[in-house]
Amino acid sequence: MSLLERLSFNQMTVDPWSLEQVVRNCSRIGVPYIGAWRHKLGSDAAKASAMIRSEGLGVSSLCRGGWFSAPTVEERRKRIADNRAAIEEAAMIGAPVLVIVSGPANGQTLDDARATVLDGLMEVLPDAEKAGVVLGIEPLHPMYAAERSVVVTLKQANEIVERLASPAAGVVVDAFHVWWDPDVMDQIERARGKIVGFHVSDWPVPLPGILMGRAMMGDGVIELRRLREAVDAAGYDGPIEVEIFNEEIWKTADDGLLEVIQRRFVEYV
Amino acid sequence: MSLLERLSFNQMTVDPWSLEQVVRNCSRIGVPYIGAWRHKLGSDAAKASAMIRSEGLGVSSLCRGGWFSAPTVEERRKRIADNRAAIEEAAMIGAPVLVIVSGPANGQTLDDARATVLDGLMEVLPDAEKAGVVLGIEPLHPMYAAERSVVVTLKQANEIVERLASPAAGVVVDAFHVWWDPDVMDQIERARGKIVGFHVSDWPVPLPGILMGRAMMGDGVIELRRLREAVDAAGYDGPIEVEIFNEEIWKTADDGLLEVIQRRFVEYV
Repeated sequence: MSLLERLSFNQMTVDPWSLEQVVRNCSRIGVPYIGAWRHKLGSDAAKASAMIRSEGLGVSSLCRGGWFSAPTVEERRKRIADNRAAIEEAAMIGAPVLVIVSGPANGQTLDDARATVLDGLMEVLPDAEKAGVVLGIEPLHPMYAAERSVVVTLKQANEIVERLASPAAGVVVDAFHVWWDPDVMDQIERARGKIVGFHVSDWPVPLPGILMGRAMMGDGVIELRRLREAVDAAGYDGPIEVEIFNEEIWKTADDGLLEVIQRRFVEYV
Repeated sequence: MSLLERLSFNQMTVDPWSLEQVVRNCSRIGVPYIGAWRHKLGSDAAKASAMIRSEGLGVSSLCRGGWFSAPTVEERRKRIADNRAAIEEAAMIGAPVLVIVSGPANGQTLDDARATVLDGLMEVLPDAEKAGVVLGIEPLHPMYAAERSVVVTLKQANEIVERLASPAAGVVVDAFHVWWDPDVMDQIERARGKIVGFHVSDWPVPLPGILMGRAMMGDGVIELRRLREAVDAAGYDGPIEVEIFNEEIWKTADDGLLEVIQRRFVEYV
């Protein structure tokens, strides 16, 4: 299988494009998968799913579940319910993986928040098993520890997945989030058989911003090829999502963007 | 010993203050130590040292050595020479510790850059031993991996210090850089007897910027007390440096700042 056959376009790479535009553009140029986001599906997931299928595209994952920690029990119950809804949506659009971003401590201590994340995952795991959806635990870069994810290393994600010990639990490796980690190669190998997603973008120097500072593959310092080969060597042969958060791309994206992505993908990933 | 007797004011907390102002202000309010920076010493380190001593202050550390990686051999030789000069300056101003910020990969691969850092440290270690100065390896937050430090975890710093195996090698624990790490408590314990510095500030939410986004203790989410107690329990009883990089503080700092720092230090650290 050629690398391009594994390319998935995560739709937040161009937030201004509707789901329809994403599907049409990907279909036309031959990008075989999209990475979908819940808030982009609209009110009718079945309809969105039919539209994606009608263009012959696959869905590599749905973003996102998680965000388990909250200061009150009531709020934490709501988060669980929301994760159940996300699992259903993933099943409905044929996404094999629901990407899990654990959420910040949100008023809890780090230790308590991390325990809350594990509890939450354990609680919704049976729903995922029943729905045939894998919970893909994605560690985020430690610079998001305070605002987005108390799960910040692949080691942590591996430990969680080993605790969950279910075919419905795996890890998502995003190069932007893990490239800096001295343990990343060992932890990718440790994740053998449990890797359910691989995301790519790049880390520009200097990094222009925390949330929207990602770059196109090749415009930064991440050793993408090395990471991809490690993930492949650990047995992953599924879709590879291009997920770039960059306002400049949002502003300037046109038909040519997907060609650039394909070219950079082949050259650097 | 009361906590305030361990307080050290890192002079980059107020960049606009000259060394003289820092010394005078700290002396007046009874802050016993300062953390010094090389570019603030002026051309005559002996004179700076005499001025600091004349006000009865101690120097907790000198910032900074390191920055070993470079694309050419010639440039790497210059870095070694600069580290030797930094060791001499530290000895001259009576700083027991030279803080080591390893530097970015700077054109090398991450693995090569990390090897270069270890090589560089091994090369200057005899100079440090002879001068009676401890090289304090400070892991930086992983968000600085591309621009400032390929050493990004306390585990890495511990491994380096264990390899160096010398009384002239230790680790510096900066709360801002390590608080997110799931392994931080284990690694602080592992560093027992090798901790040669502890720095505090806070991580505000949201983080306003990568370089200048640090907050006053108590204005963020870092569990400072917990980290300080862990560092103490691992046998460290030396100075604790307040090192805040925040432009608002640079702009507004007046005589009252040190009182605020003392109050927050006692309340949160």
